[in-house]
Amino acid sequence: MIADFGEDRLVAALLARLPVGAGKRGGVIAGAGEDDCALVRPSGAKHWQLLKTDCVIEGVHFAPDTPPEAIGWKALCRPLSDIAASGGKPEFALVTLALPGSAAVEYATGIYAGIGRAAGEFGVEVVGGEKARSPGPWVVSVCLTGRVRRDRAVTRVGGRVGDRLYVTGRLGVSFGSGRHLTFRPRLAEARWLTRNFPVRAMMDLSDGLASDLPRMARASGTGFQIDPGRLPLSEGCTVAQALGDGEDYELLFAVNPRHAAKLERDWNKRWPDVSLTGIGALAAAGIGAGLEAERGFDHFQPR
Amino acid sequence: MIADFGEDRLVAALLARLPVGAGKRGGVIAGAGEDDCALVRPSGAKHWQLLKTDCVIEGVHFAPDTPPEAIGWKALCRPLSDIAASGGKPEFALVTLALPGSAAVEYATGIYAGIGRAAGEFGVEVVGGEKARSPGPWVVSVCLTGRVRRDRAVTRVGGRVGDRLYVTGRLGVSFGSGRHLTFRPRLAEARWLTRNFPVRAMMDLSDGLASDLPRMARASGTGFQIDPGRLPLSEGCTVAQALGDGEDYELLFAVNPRHAAKLERDWNKRWPDVSLTGIGALAAAGIGAGLEAERGFDHFQPR
Repeated sequence: MIADFGEDRLVAALLARLPVGAGKRGGVIAGAGEDDCALVRPSGAKHWQLLKTDCVIEGVHFAPDTPPEAIGWKALCRPLSDIAASGGKPEFALVTLALPGSAAVEYATGIYAGIGRAAGEFGVEVVGGEKARSPGPWVVSVCLTGRVRRDRAVTRVGGRVGDRLYVTGRLGVSFGSGRHLTFRPRLAEARWLTRNFPVRAMMDLSDGLASDLPRMARASGTGFQIDPGRLPLSEGCTVAQALGDGEDYELLFAVNPRHAAKLERDWNKRWPDVSLTGIGALAAAGIGAGLEAERGFDHFQPR
Repeated sequence: MIADFGEDRLVAALLARLPVGAGKRGGVIAGAGEDDCALVRPSGAKHWQLLKTDCVIEGVHFAPDTPPEAIGWKALCRPLSDIAASGGKPEFALVTLALPGSAAVEYATGIYAGIGRAAGEFGVEVVGGEKARSPGPWVVSVCLTGRVRRDRAVTRVGGRVGDRLYVTGRLGVSFGSGRHLTFRPRLAEARWLTRNFPVRAMMDLSDGLASDLPRMARASGTGFQIDPGRLPLSEGCTVAQALGDGEDYELLFAVNPRHAAKLERDWNKRWPDVSLTGIGALAAAGIGAGLEAERGFDHFQPR
């Protein structure tokens, strides 16, 4: 069964069932299973387009007593965090609600109020979606498009040995503190970064540093070294929690060490309220492989 | 609760919670709640873009014993039918699977095999998606982009009093016959139509003619008259079933009566295996309002 199989293997098994060359033909820059967002060039378009879909499910990503506005906020801010990590600007959203016929109308409109608040705040146009009856838990699925200039698009692929690794904000206990319902996607920070510094690889931390950093390093063909003592811990959080909890929605990125001093200086001036922490560096392939033992979050493991 | 509230009212209540002017600002041609697809113009793009999301849910759109390949086929072909109805050509897809950790890996890969077959057949690039653990029924959600030339995009809005109404194929008992799992979206037929005839309004029949035709007429600001005796019934199907069953995935469209004779002649030559039936005409607003009593399918009513 899938819980024993592991998420990354499942993705590989699924992709093997698509047509040969799928996602690799004209117009596809980063395809299925490769990055935070798909990166495509629709025919007739000047900019590259980012595509992302993401869902939150009752009992997994929110509790039955979570206020509906918070659910809506989280449902839209999660894929916004992926658009941010790709250096993009969000454009259009489609929202799917799967909900029981017995659900209260006010609960559904509350979810939309949260989606609407995030849409207004981050400049997203909700242009459609679907309402489906489901016998099961509530599901809110959001599909987002974004745009990015070709020379500013960032994937997980470009990191090089020696690049400094940074994370924004603080890590760990996002569920315990409720931050997973109120976080703000780092859209403005990421756009500032890609405009001003040659960011070589970037992703958002959704599954926890111990799962996500190895993915970025693998995509870049490198390993990594980090100093666990330097991790920016959330209040009351252990190193293991900061590595494994997930749902941080912070940026993890790699920068040429030559730019490190200027980056830190400029960051603190521009974003005085958001911490930036150098946690280590990309290293030769193979180094760092032990970190995955600290992995906490697998989508198919009960937590 | 939502089941008593009705789908169209629910949509209106949800859209009221989005920011004022949402979906109506720069780049949005048809927004939330308006058409089969959202129609947008991403910045820097020459073509218009179609956006559509759609999901199938175990116990609602397929049975627990439905072969997984058929589920995957249906999951991708449903939104393809909406792209067809807008006159578009599909480009990219994102696929979300929400599934229990106890699910068999072969079931998931079977769904992807069906998605892959449809993707290959209709020229879709699957560029990403998400796998989420869910305690509930299987959900397969597909988000699709498509492109359409500005002068060939068709919505529900352009119909005029006197336009002839046509449907492709045969209607009714899609669930009973299994056709809902094997249908082919009318992409090629719709592109041929929009290339060769001034189609004024078009949509795909997913909820049944008795639900869908009033929607198209309302969007066009007209009423309608149909001759129930002329409906193209599926084998062993009653008129009430053809009106109310839903899941036909056929095209319904309106054409200036001047073009009717040539359309019928050319259609039969070009698409000898797909019937085209004139079922009536658009009429003055208000005429036809009684048809909604025949509605069978509401997403929030048990069926």
